[in-house]
Amino acid sequence: MSQQAQYYIGIDGGGTKCKALLKDSCGHILGEAIAGSANPASNLELAKESIVEAAQLTLQQANLPRSTIKSLHAGIGLAGVNLPKTRLKMEHWSHPFASMLITTDLHIACLGAHNGADGAIIISGTGSSAVAVKNNQHFEIGGHGFTAGDKGSGAWIGLTAVRASLEAMDGLAPTSNLVDSIKDYLKCSTAIEVAEIVNGCGATFYAGFAPLVFEAVRQQDPIALDIVLNGADYLSRIARRLLSNQSMRLSLIGGLASQITPWLDDDVKEQLSPPLCSPDFGAVLLIEQQQLLSVS
Amino acid sequence: MSQQAQYYIGIDGGGTKCKALLKDSCGHILGEAIAGSANPASNLELAKESIVEAAQLTLQQANLPRSTIKSLHAGIGLAGVNLPKTRLKMEHWSHPFASMLITTDLHIACLGAHNGADGAIIISGTGSSAVAVKNNQHFEIGGHGFTAGDKGSGAWIGLTAVRASLEAMDGLAPTSNLVDSIKDYLKCSTAIEVAEIVNGCGATFYAGFAPLVFEAVRQQDPIALDIVLNGADYLSRIARRLLSNQSMRLSLIGGLASQITPWLDDDVKEQLSPPLCSPDFGAVLLIEQQQLLSVS
Repeated sequence: MSQQAQYYIGIDGGGTKCKALLKDSCGHILGEAIAGSANPASNLELAKESIVEAAQLTLQQANLPRSTIKSLHAGIGLAGVNLPKTRLKMEHWSHPFASMLITTDLHIACLGAHNGADGAIIISGTGSSAVAVKNNQHFEIGGHGFTAGDKGSGAWIGLTAVRASLEAMDGLAPTSNLVDSIKDYLKCSTAIEVAEIVNGCGATFYAGFAPLVFEAVRQQDPIALDIVLNGADYLSRIARRLLSNQSMRLSLIGGLASQITPWLDDDVKEQLSPPLCSPDFGAVLLIEQQQLLSVS
Repeated sequence: MSQQAQYYIGIDGGGTKCKALLKDSCGHILGEAIAGSANPASNLELAKESIVEAAQLTLQQANLPRSTIKSLHAGIGLAGVNLPKTRLKMEHWSHPFASMLITTDLHIACLGAHNGADGAIIISGTGSSAVAVKNNQHFEIGGHGFTAGDKGSGAWIGLTAVRASLEAMDGLAPTSNLVDSIKDYLKCSTAIEVAEIVNGCGATFYAGFAPLVFEAVRQQDPIALDIVLNGADYLSRIARRLLSNQSMRLSLIGGLASQITPWLDDDVKEQLSPPLCSPDFGAVLLIEQQQLLSVS
């Protein structure tokens, strides 16, 4: 059998979508594609299907046959595999690739942000989490989920705003325009109506209130300012912890990054650098580095 | 048809059990019984079954035939009927009683605590909530559920302790003995292990940490003290709001009442009176008062 061409695919899988990036061994980008949800902690089989589908879509773009999938070396970063049980299930997958490396979505985002070099990232989107990567070791903090963690995230900001609004509507704390905008958003006039809608809702629902909070911050709303400062303080403490006793590149990424950055402590803001590449790019870097190590 | 004897039954229904108290028209207690879960917001049909079962058990104790149920005037206080949709569903029940009056568990607890007189109560148990009853009007505050409300409750205290412990384990805040006792309780050594257990858990699970927090308070643990003071401050604000511009009897009831009372503000502690009767007793008072009104 003749020596087959080598291809590298980077996969960035999360709850809403699965991105894939295909490169050849010379570093040329051959295809980019997006498939459906790929969070193995929520739905293991769907995650595997989405990964394969995203990979096949990139092969199609590159005019390569579907069977090329068995020549792909896959670097796969996934939400949910920070949970040891979920990670184990993914690693036991009888996958269709030539080789596969599973890591967290955080890890590939960090590799991407610093183009494969050591560095640290903080993510503030629907959830929040952070990682520092140094000498191939990664140190993760935060990211403990909507109920008990994820402070400084969109979901936490929204939940905290709803809590504060309910207290204000009960006459237990001063009210503000933010309270009115939350009532308008939910089309409610009483606390009990708000409670009836919001109870049992999850992270994505609560993250929907974050834009109202940032809009209120622009109007100097005291409740909104208090919430955002409290969330930003948490992210500042994470930044200091990641950089403690070491000098490394640090990026803040995720949907809230640009809005929350002005509220970080000054010493943290000074340390921030913009992300260089995307997480799927980081996933390719991961598998390329691994392959280089295995043949050297 | 000869005039039938009149009986009054009080029902106190909640997520864990349904209590019933049967009285004759002279005020004699004929029977007391407990049946299963009766929270119509969680399970409407089960709630109806538990109410009927509890009623039949009291008839059995009183040596009255099962058919006597159609001579019972029922005062029914239920968890969950503060939600308008749930209340409507219960009020449309083709019930087996001679007459039925549906109200909240809070309302009957308040009637019971003050033996039918006007007054106010604050409940701190797994959840928290409050009501003032005056001239047959009731004014409820708090009680907005585990996710967005219920501050000062066992579930809120437990959740706040877990949040603080995760921050401490991440090296983002000072640690304390409470953090160790939570790790021991969960048999975990890392933050990620704790997060894997606690995520997605509900109010009852989190309320299980409250005894650890109060034990830590006895040892002057700074994290535990901060949490309990914060929860007690909320309950103090509720008390002041209930009593604003009016003088009425106030009781603090529920599983955490005795433990959290010492941490309330002094002006609130001075206003507290012990509850006089139980909620099922309050439910009987409600239906007796209603019947008196309807025949007068």
